[in-house]
Amino acid sequence: MDERGDGAVLELHGKTAFSTDSFLVSPIFFPGGNIGELAVNGTVNDLSMCGATPNYISLSFIIEEGLPMTEFWEVLVGIRHAADKADVTIVTGDTKVVEKGKGDKLFINTSGIGMVHPNASLGISHIKEGDKIIVSGPIAAHGMAIMSVREGLEFQTEIVSDTTNLNHTVYALLEAFGNGIHLLTDPTRGGIATVLKETALRSGHGISLEQRDIPIGPQVASACEILGLDPVYVANEGIFIGFVDASIAGDLVTTLRSLEHGENASIIGEVVSEHPKQVVMTSSIGGKRMISMLPGEQLPRIC
Amino acid sequence: MDERGDGAVLELHGKTAFSTDSFLVSPIFFPGGNIGELAVNGTVNDLSMCGATPNYISLSFIIEEGLPMTEFWEVLVGIRHAADKADVTIVTGDTKVVEKGKGDKLFINTSGIGMVHPNASLGISHIKEGDKIIVSGPIAAHGMAIMSVREGLEFQTEIVSDTTNLNHTVYALLEAFGNGIHLLTDPTRGGIATVLKETALRSGHGISLEQRDIPIGPQVASACEILGLDPVYVANEGIFIGFVDASIAGDLVTTLRSLEHGENASIIGEVVSEHPKQVVMTSSIGGKRMISMLPGEQLPRIC
Repeated sequence: MDERGDGAVLELHGKTAFSTDSFLVSPIFFPGGNIGELAVNGTVNDLSMCGATPNYISLSFIIEEGLPMTEFWEVLVGIRHAADKADVTIVTGDTKVVEKGKGDKLFINTSGIGMVHPNASLGISHIKEGDKIIVSGPIAAHGMAIMSVREGLEFQTEIVSDTTNLNHTVYALLEAFGNGIHLLTDPTRGGIATVLKETALRSGHGISLEQRDIPIGPQVASACEILGLDPVYVANEGIFIGFVDASIAGDLVTTLRSLEHGENASIIGEVVSEHPKQVVMTSSIGGKRMISMLPGEQLPRIC
Repeated sequence: MDERGDGAVLELHGKTAFSTDSFLVSPIFFPGGNIGELAVNGTVNDLSMCGATPNYISLSFIIEEGLPMTEFWEVLVGIRHAADKADVTIVTGDTKVVEKGKGDKLFINTSGIGMVHPNASLGISHIKEGDKIIVSGPIAAHGMAIMSVREGLEFQTEIVSDTTNLNHTVYALLEAFGNGIHLLTDPTRGGIATVLKETALRSGHGISLEQRDIPIGPQVASACEILGLDPVYVANEGIFIGFVDASIAGDLVTTLRSLEHGENASIIGEVVSEHPKQVVMTSSIGGKRMISMLPGEQLPRIC
């Protein structure tokens, strides 16, 4: 790294992933994290989904006048913690202030750069019929953690956001299974339903899901029921979906269960020739239903 | 480029600059440009100041509910135009919406990646006594264009922002003068005074300036007088300051004057052993004054 002011100068060689995301989550503090951790983890995970090791991150703050310094400081601590855990370096940044009433406490943009793993061979066109669809952990925790705070709900146990970095886990899988992994994607806004429907549309393949195999925490499931939300549409910030070759799917799930954040990994469906571009879920009691995309956002300001 | 959704995959080799900036300019349309052009040019120029050719840009929108589609469209056209002119590719992006009253029409973050020119050898530590300080064009146009709209001032001729891309001009100078150029920096927020004072502080050197050599448009100078603003503190978006070896300074200015946006380039000062860490300006009538940094922002929401 150089000593420049207007940007960072880095030494890069080869296939490089580049990603950006702005975070506006409200409230900025929630059970399991804050906007700072979310912003670092979000970009770390986007790079991971490209098969890359996140190396460098930029950080840009839009601060609303009046944000207490103590809160900003707490966010910075969250950023530091998340960056350390993911082993990324924050190399450049920017801070801007808006007048009171022209922002909402704090918005954060993170952009990131990472070197793509040499074994990674990921892309929508790599998906093929028979591929197994795996999910790395229980769904809907982030969205329900935010909702429970916003709605002032009290449960016996607090629902905690799953925000975390997935890069170390993804790296281990790429090392072990290389091009057996065809696509990785993280089901953030819109949940697993949205990302799977998008994948079906873009690839032209059909997707079938087994509801009973989709992991979900009992507290999260109850909260969804109380609020009338379908957990497959609820945002996640610490799980990923993989489309993997059927021949390695079992081994991959076994490995994933031994890795950080992967203990509840499960095969939840497969790529099928029937119903091209459609996602069909078999419910726990045997009925089938089509999964479509929701018009608009179910939960605004979730990330 | 790959077909991935969560980020772009690029092929990069060697010294790479990485930069980020969030733009909150108010109003989002102003004489000479809009927030979209500003956002592209801002990051293009930050990369240029690192000696890099801007290659790839990310674009992240924070839209306030209720922004008319026609205005958003106009901003997009500005982005497209600026990206084409600078010859950068927008490779990844993100769009978020906030409720009315939680934003202000539109904020844009751009981050960028560019390959550093092999001839570039830039850095604060490269500055040395005797270096000439050049400015590529007339100062204070951007800040005064924004101010004139905000204050509803009417001048005989409209004052127009200088927002533009500097990358082609900088590239030509690096090709021709290589490591004779010791530092490049763009005097945006806080104007040339702030950036020169920062450079003096960080390098430990003294800087002397000749006020009469600092180019400024007559309209801009009058507007500054009317509003009681010192133009050396007013923001610029289309000029740069260079610290260059005395032996090439004259030739560089001659070349710069033949390049796009460089016709009014001028040597405005030099690096001196007297008054270390201080910037001293000799006024047009011969008096000397110290240039300090302003506490706080003179003009908020200028970029």
